[in-house]
Amino acid sequence: MKQILVIGIGAGNPDYITLQAVKALNRADVFFLMDKGESKDKLIDLRREICERYITDQAYRFVEATSPERERGEVDYRASVEELNMAKQLTFERLIHEEMADGECAGFLVWGDPALYDSTIRILQAILASGRCEFEFEVIPGITSVQALCAQHKMPLNRIGQSIEITTGRRLAAGQVGDADSLVVMLDAQDAYHQVADSETEIYWGAYLGTPDELLISGKLKDVAQEIERVRKAARLANGWIMDTYLLRKP
Amino acid sequence: MKQILVIGIGAGNPDYITLQAVKALNRADVFFLMDKGESKDKLIDLRREICERYITDQAYRFVEATSPERERGEVDYRASVEELNMAKQLTFERLIHEEMADGECAGFLVWGDPALYDSTIRILQAILASGRCEFEFEVIPGITSVQALCAQHKMPLNRIGQSIEITTGRRLAAGQVGDADSLVVMLDAQDAYHQVADSETEIYWGAYLGTPDELLISGKLKDVAQEIERVRKAARLANGWIMDTYLLRKP
Ligand SMILES: C[S@@+](CC[C@H](N)C(=O)[O-])C[C@H]1O[C@@H](n2cnc3c(N)ncnc32)[C@H](O)[C@@H]1O
Ligand SMILES: C[S@@+](CC[C@H](N)C(=O)[O-])C[C@H]1O[C@@H](n2cnc3c(N)ncnc32)[C@H](O)[C@@H]1O
Repeated sequence: MKQILVIGIGAGNPDYITLQAVKALNRADVFFLMDKGESKDKLIDLRREICERYITDQAYRFVEATSPERERGEVDYRASVEELNMAKQLTFERLIHEEMADGECAGFLVWGDPALYDSTIRILQAILASGRCEFEFEVIPGITSVQALCAQHKMPLNRIGQSIEITTGRRLAAGQVGDADSLVVMLDAQDAYHQVADSETEIYWGAYLGTPDELLISGKLKDVAQEIERVRKAARLANGWIMDTYLLRKP
Repeated sequence: MKQILVIGIGAGNPDYITLQAVKALNRADVFFLMDKGESKDKLIDLRREICERYITDQAYRFVEATSPERERGEVDYRASVEELNMAKQLTFERLIHEEMADGECAGFLVWGDPALYDSTIRILQAILASGRCEFEFEVIPGITSVQALCAQHKMPLNRIGQSIEITTGRRLAAGQVGDADSLVVMLDAQDAYHQVADSETEIYWGAYLGTPDELLISGKLKDVAQEIERVRKAARLANGWIMDTYLLRKP
């Protein structure tokens, strides 16, 4: 049987890695790295660095595959993600068929936690359901960007007995959010925090959390929204890409 | 200056601990253990075990304090939690004043992640705001029970582009939930999943996640709700207490 390990490596700081993940790294014969194009090279490098730093037990190899990019612009979001996942699924199937022998163990290194806004688990489940490959797989959780955000701002995610909603910038911009006491926004490509009507709302914003480039801003939306937009734009320009997450909460 | 480290130790498996947490453990001179009464002795033991296993660099001591219990029964939940936190705050202040010297570093070992339904960060912020003690503190994130739940069921927390609500059994039972696509329920003392009207809803349930006592059940609510209630009751009886978490999702 082939074994696959979906390993959460944490969202930024290499020390976010768990001992369970370190043990898993040391079981893999091969790591599948999904290349996302030049601007994300840093993320691939971090994965290589993590392997170099933490694997002590055995020889391993890397196999890089180009990860298809989602179609941008005026397309249906869900449909374009599903199309992308279909293409990724074919890539994963090829890797499992051609790049690992029976009895070998392969690792996917997933940014943050594999359960949060990541398609690796979904795609592996789809492959198993299709019956086109046979393998066993395990999931190793990792520290998410939401947890990094709270830790760096030294704040609780929830208020006493209250609920939390985690959602996307797209949904916030479209007004598709509930009335949970705390709202965490990820995957925001459009400064969706500007859509929040209540300007007394507090925002806790963080970019490149846990990395040397980390940026943190917090305050009332009305006071800091312009600053966040400016810092965000400048950081995206400087780095070629941005990863940021924020929490919104009424005072 | 006194230093305080709020260290997430993960929600069950000792291997959930991060390297950042291991480094933090090795910086502390003293650990404050909050005793929650006999039934939770296992949790205190786990904390001692974690220190024994991972601290290699320096001598350390434990200080146990009895953690006040929340008043149960027919009381206002928020008020009783706030009262509890006030009592805890006084305990924390005493520990910081009397049980650590200036220049020393103290650690609180928090189950799971300190940002999720835990009062340690809130209390330390309240103490700082009161001006009654001076110290610096850091937060080290840990793997939450929500992540353990997803990892063990090998499922994503969210569906493509959709949102997640994390809430309490109390809120679910009171109908105070939004319409997020995925609903995670914690702190459920009352089998609140029975309140969900749509019996096509799927549940992914887990107790004592990541520990040798782990229990997992999943399926359509209408098929497994009775089984979960039975298993839950039996486990609570056998162990004296239960920790469980579940995810609800319409098919
Ligand atoms: C595709 S999702 C992956 C989330 C990841 N699996 C996790 O557990 O955090 C990417 C989004 O995560 C957030 N993110 C990931 N890493 C981050 C970091 N270091 N700082 C801030 N936000 C981050 C951003 O909102 C980004 O748009
Ligand atoms: C006071 S909250 C603490 C949550 C913790 N800080 C975390 O990050 O998971 C306690 C609740 O967490 C959940 N929980 C904690 N550990 C668990 C475990 N190992 N298995 C299942 N549920 C757990 C249960 O819902 C329990 O009622």
